[in-house]
Amino acid sequence: MIVYILGMGAMAVFSFTGVLGAVRKDRDILGLVVLGVITAVGGGTLRDTILGVPVFWIQDINYILVSCAASILFFFLLKIASVKAARYKLLLYFDAMGIAFFCIQAFDKTTLLGHSFPIALVMALLTGLGGGVMRDVLTGRPNLLITRELYASPALLGSILYGTLISFYPGVLWPKFISMAFIALFRIMAIHFNMQMPLWLVNRRDPD
Amino acid sequence: MIVYILGMGAMAVFSFTGVLGAVRKDRDILGLVVLGVITAVGGGTLRDTILGVPVFWIQDINYILVSCAASILFFFLLKIASVKAARYKLLLYFDAMGIAFFCIQAFDKTTLLGHSFPIALVMALLTGLGGGVMRDVLTGRPNLLITRELYASPALLGSILYGTLISFYPGVLWPKFISMAFIALFRIMAIHFNMQMPLWLVNRRDPD
Amino acid sequence: MIVYILGMGAMAVFSFTGVLGAVRKDRDILGLVVLGVITAVGGGTLRDTILGVPVFWIQDINYILVSCAASILFFFLLKIASVKAARYKLLLYFDAMGIAFFCIQAFDKTTLLGHSFPIALVMALLTGLGGGVMRDVLTGRPNLLITRELYASPALLGSILYGTLISFYPGVLWPKFISMAFIALFRIMAIHFNMQMPLWLVNRRDPD
Repeated sequence: MIVYILGMGAMAVFSFTGVLGAVRKDRDILGLVVLGVITAVGGGTLRDTILGVPVFWIQDINYILVSCAASILFFFLLKIASVKAARYKLLLYFDAMGIAFFCIQAFDKTTLLGHSFPIALVMALLTGLGGGVMRDVLTGRPNLLITRELYASPALLGSILYGTLISFYPGVLWPKFISMAFIALFRIMAIHFNMQMPLWLVNRRDPD
Repeated sequence: MIVYILGMGAMAVFSFTGVLGAVRKDRDILGLVVLGVITAVGGGTLRDTILGVPVFWIQDINYILVSCAASILFFFLLKIASVKAARYKLLLYFDAMGIAFFCIQAFDKTTLLGHSFPIALVMALLTGLGGGVMRDVLTGRPNLLITRELYASPALLGSILYGTLISFYPGVLWPKFISMAFIALFRIMAIHFNMQMPLWLVNRRDPD
Repeated sequence: MIVYILGMGAMAVFSFTGVLGAVRKDRDILGLVVLGVITAVGGGTLRDTILGVPVFWIQDINYILVSCAASILFFFLLKIASVKAARYKLLLYFDAMGIAFFCIQAFDKTTLLGHSFPIALVMALLTGLGGGVMRDVLTGRPNLLITRELYASPALLGSILYGTLISFYPGVLWPKFISMAFIALFRIMAIHFNMQMPLWLVNRRDPD
């Protein structure tokens, strides 16, 4: 029950980031709601399709409804309120919590289906980051995979941490919360302190 | 039988719009045919994959063949004939009929599989608009989700109309035709009179 | 066994082209590895998802691991070594061999599942070219479908050749090698001699 509510919350937060990422002068509500929904459910849809299991929002349409409602709400919020830089940051913090939740949930779903940890890791990244990449491709923005910002790293390291913890401590709950907290806090610190990859992990020149 | 022929016609029309949308100086026939086919079958492929049912053109390859033939035909047509603005409009009208057909057909297919109306609505939009979005992403054009043109609205409203009609009048045929006509005519009127979303449903400024 | 090793080699080569295609100043290792993996497994993932069979790298995670290892290796190679134009060409040759292998393997996999030759042809193209198109979309480059370079043609003609040969000579191995060699050599000659489509198969002007 608490996981279900958290999941819907993560859904709403991702829709927010979809609308905020896509909003521009003269874009209308329908396009923005569609983009909000794609951002929210895109990653999980990829995961379920590739795993060959029923897509989660086909089984429970509430995910789509919550995502639509959140997108519509945010559309009107953006119309009446000026979005200050501080609020963007607040939103990025929420986004970080959404990614944390989606990654660990996807890891769990995949291992419960009997798959190995490396596959669960791939699915955690697909679920946490897939929707955001779709949003960026559809709105024509450079996507997060090709920016230097520490976006994928917290999700990757936190999922590895989770896999390690649950192989040593199976059947308990705290690895879940530790790993989610790790992903969210790492990402929030990366935003707050403008952290970037160590230089030896960054390409320093254009190819000839 | 009549539905099958209509379906093939919609397939051909969508291929036409794919080729026309992608055609530029120095683009060759193979790339344009691939784009025509993706435009025609892309939306339905998404739908079937997400619903977890066999993809329609795997079961009946004629969809691909008709789409290839239409794309090849249109490639040579564009080479020999100058495409006047008036013909573009004619094509947009055909496109509107294609969307109308695909939306209602997808709605039917989804409800026949036992899914609820909201899911059928999502599938109608996916099927009607998915191929066009793929075409725009692959050719690097701003896609229809982020333009103000009334493109998705007729499909959305017409599918809602259809869902409402068939819940009151199940098992009869006329809601199908009424709803298809509604979508096509709404879209054609939107083109003809350059209709746009009411301003309160449009974001009026860039985010700060 | 030999096919398995060849498959892994093709995987590594595609990862290389993914990293090389995406590498720019200031892009970090994680983004480039993700793009390398998507380039390598993207086409086959589309194929298996559309065919409704288990995705190949879910059944054998080694494909992902080899692809990650190759991407990491190439990232550091690009950091320490200046990539000369000649090496690009060498890589394109390897890429040609990768496409040749993937097309014929996909054709075989599809016909073994009982599908017809036209469907096998579509799957050969999807598998051989899908990953590269995903890479180009995610990195914001014009994709190969809309360039005049002879990229898709060798895959198409070689797959048609393979289908023709195995319908006349079923159950023997040499059509496989003949067709792979045809695709790879045709593509390599296209690069080497800068071959392009005959003009009557190219659109010569922008639409009015």
